[in-house]
Amino acid sequence: ALRLYLEELHPYEIGALLDELEESEQLVILSLTLPEAAAEALEHLDYDDQYRLLDHLDEESASKIIAAMGRDAIADLLMAIHPNKAQEIMAMIPREYLESIKFLMSYPEDSAGGIMSLDYIQARQYWTIERVIEHFRKVGRKQSVANYIYIVDAVGKLVGVLSLKELLLNEPKTKVEDVMHTNIITVLATADQEEAAKLMSQYDLMILPVVNEQARLVGVITADDIMDVIEEEDTEDIHRLGGSQPLDLPYLESTLTTLFSKRIGWLVVLFATQAVTSNILKHYEGVLSSVVALTFFMPLLAGVGGNSGTQASSLIIRGLALGEITVHDIAVILFKELRVSALIGIVMGTIGYFFAWTVSGSTGVATVVAVTVTVVLIVSSTIGAILPIVGRAFRLDPAVFSAPLITTVVDITSLMVYFNIAIKLLKLGG
Amino acid sequence: ALRLYLEELHPYEIGALLDELEESEQLVILSLTLPEAAAEALEHLDYDDQYRLLDHLDEESASKIIAAMGRDAIADLLMAIHPNKAQEIMAMIPREYLESIKFLMSYPEDSAGGIMSLDYIQARQYWTIERVIEHFRKVGRKQSVANYIYIVDAVGKLVGVLSLKELLLNEPKTKVEDVMHTNIITVLATADQEEAAKLMSQYDLMILPVVNEQARLVGVITADDIMDVIEEEDTEDIHRLGGSQPLDLPYLESTLTTLFSKRIGWLVVLFATQAVTSNILKHYEGVLSSVVALTFFMPLLAGVGGNSGTQASSLIIRGLALGEITVHDIAVILFKELRVSALIGIVMGTIGYFFAWTVSGSTGVATVVAVTVTVVLIVSSTIGAILPIVGRAFRLDPAVFSAPLITTVVDITSLMVYFNIAIKLLKLGG
Ligand SMILES: [Mg+2]
Ligand SMILES: [Mg+2]
Ligand SMILES: [Mg+2]
Ligand SMILES: [Mg+2]
Ligand SMILES: [Mg+2]
Ligand SMILES: [Mg+2]
Ligand SMILES: [Mg+2]
Ligand SMILES: [Mg+2]
Ligand SMILES: [Mg+2]
Ligand SMILES: [Mg+2]
Ligand SMILES: [Mg+2]
Ligand SMILES: [Mg+2]
Ligand SMILES: [Mg+2]
Repeated sequence: ALRLYLEELHPYEIGALLDELEESEQLVILSLTLPEAAAEALEHLDYDDQYRLLDHLDEESASKIIAAMGRDAIADLLMAIHPNKAQEIMAMIPREYLESIKFLMSYPEDSAGGIMSLDYIQARQYWTIERVIEHFRKVGRKQSVANYIYIVDAVGKLVGVLSLKELLLNEPKTKVEDVMHTNIITVLATADQEEAAKLMSQYDLMILPVVNEQARLVGVITADDIMDVIEEEDTEDIHRLGGSQPLDLPYLESTLTTLFSKRIGWLVVLFATQAVTSNILKHYEGVLSSVVALTFFMPLLAGVGGNSGTQASSLIIRGLALGEITVHDIAVILFKELRVSALIGIVMGTIGYFFAWTVSGSTGVATVVAVTVTVVLIVSSTIGAILPIVGRAFRLDPAVFSAPLITTVVDITSLMVYFNIAIKLLKLGG
Repeated sequence: ALRLYLEELHPYEIGALLDELEESEQLVILSLTLPEAAAEALEHLDYDDQYRLLDHLDEESASKIIAAMGRDAIADLLMAIHPNKAQEIMAMIPREYLESIKFLMSYPEDSAGGIMSLDYIQARQYWTIERVIEHFRKVGRKQSVANYIYIVDAVGKLVGVLSLKELLLNEPKTKVEDVMHTNIITVLATADQEEAAKLMSQYDLMILPVVNEQARLVGVITADDIMDVIEEEDTEDIHRLGGSQPLDLPYLESTLTTLFSKRIGWLVVLFATQAVTSNILKHYEGVLSSVVALTFFMPLLAGVGGNSGTQASSLIIRGLALGEITVHDIAVILFKELRVSALIGIVMGTIGYFFAWTVSGSTGVATVVAVTVTVVLIVSSTIGAILPIVGRAFRLDPAVFSAPLITTVVDITSLMVYFNIAIKLLKLGG
């Protein structure tokens, strides 16, 4: 009964079920599941759990599951676990897989080669459609990525592609080279996975062939894996934008030490930078004690500047990540931000005037606050918009210009602006 | 020559080329491109450009291009442009498309129905493989989504699915119902596109069938479109996290009015909230004037709190968006954040002590700063982590707990903490 129930489950659901259970139950489930489904279900667990289960299963079941796993999934597992553990798994891998798995392991985890699969089908350009179909009937059953047939020449160079649909629609005697597509988008195996993701999303591809420096076909990337890449890259960016180093594991699975070490770095750097504000305030101590009311608006002014700087930087950073904005747009963006922030500045400055006048009862202080709000809004939006673009020009990841970093820079700037305006308008001795 | 050059280009590249040209050149390019390629190229332009070009092309070319467009692309265009303009396009649509285009337009733009395509192939369960292949040869050429055959019953209910691969690998006389898969993941047409994206990414699907309330097949969603959905949803989140309302168009294409109106709202709300800080400072005016040195560290303390609150909230909000964190994890997360932030607090507090002692020369003030840094770090991390989860429990989008919002809340909190600790430790009269 359990076996029948498991057959009704999708591998993802079996994976989710395994995640909830004790090891003894996990092992029962795995041995009752078909090896193909068990292999796919395992892919949804973390690598340490994959290893533990394969290690604790009886050797026969484990070998069957490993033989049913994609070679790319095996390579990922081997690269993620301790070398001694990898040795144990290696011993259970079918001999004929070993060489190709080692080849896959030669690419970094976040490169195109690191996410490609070897389960594609290739044919030759001088074959007929009939012969390709015959070949497909022989090898197609084992290959999971089987919507396209890749056409290679004698040395393995990719020269064309044919969809299964075209295989079905063309006459059996037609030659492949007469109907194949030759204008193929490919990615280098050594390219960053982000480049593969960008190509697939721009060109609306379901499968992207991967080639080496000699233009030889070495693998394929499927859209379902690219969805995970996009989510992973966006997660990295959102973590960076929040002022941490990106976590490799989900929050709940990260250890205290990891969370500590990913977060403390930026906090210390930002603290050191923001320490400047203490010196600024010490320097203007005289101004502060002659008009104490000026103190009341310090957090508000820093706040409004930080907020609008964060707004601008987030919009620009995302635009850079999506490729909608490039370094060449800097002048256009500067001009646009100046106008938008001037508009915002005038509205907020007006609100600021009435608020400061109510709190302090002084039209002088209110004027200082109003002018400062307007200037700070313009300055902070410009800083927020321009810093990430300048960073990109110096090949920094724009996402390092996080909300905390922009806020810190703006904090310093807005205090300087505030005191200088106060001294000018209230005719105080700086 | 130009025609030959265009034939070598991918529709995405033609789209990018069109984006660079003047209208007269755009029209030449479009009329020299094959209608199928032109139709796909148009999909890469904004809706207003699509309309303008179709309107300004000669009627014959325009009709050919429209006939080659996917019905989903036509529906998207009609929904995006002014009704009068939509009428003009409508007049050029092949009669037999009209009903299905109206059906597509009945779903909201960001629902599963709003992103589905109608270009799928269906067959009946009592057919033989042979008959399906014959049917496929008849209708397959026109259908762009042709990796799966969907099996429906007499009333159109989805009962099975068969891949082209299985069509090729099975015996011609086999009955469909004997080999089709019946355990199918589907999404309701009225579901949010985010739900479709989550299903496809979890279950590793290349194509997701869409059904209506009666379980009838009404369309399919392809992985290449879901990549765009994931990017769009992440863009929305990043814009919200930066404290704006999400932009619908890229920054460079957004008007000043749009940028102004998407940004001013939160700025005003946050200004109003942060205005509380002025009242707090006014209330503690006596404390401030008796120990002026306390003023020096105000921005630093607010900064360190805002930074760590932003870190915590970004990690949690992303976890919620990915489904890695649910409302039920709140206690675990609270406990984890308390420990991590206590660690961070002790390190930063120590740094804060030495810094404050150097600047103020007073061990009393230094102690106040050190204790405040530690407390503020713990409080702000906890607020940053817990607020988005509480928000989710109340069905708010966690992404509204933006860096600016967290910073504002933390600003108020840290001032209160600071003055209370100062009064206690320095034995001042509040
Ligand atoms: Mg990675
Ligand atoms: Mg890999
Ligand atoms: Mg796309
Ligand atoms: Mg996968
Ligand atoms: Mg895979
Ligand atoms: Mg990366
Ligand atoms: Mg990145
Ligand atoms: Mg949308
Ligand atoms: Mg639509
Ligand atoms: Mg997936
Ligand atoms: Mg499409
Ligand atoms: Mg949405
Ligand atoms: Mg969302």
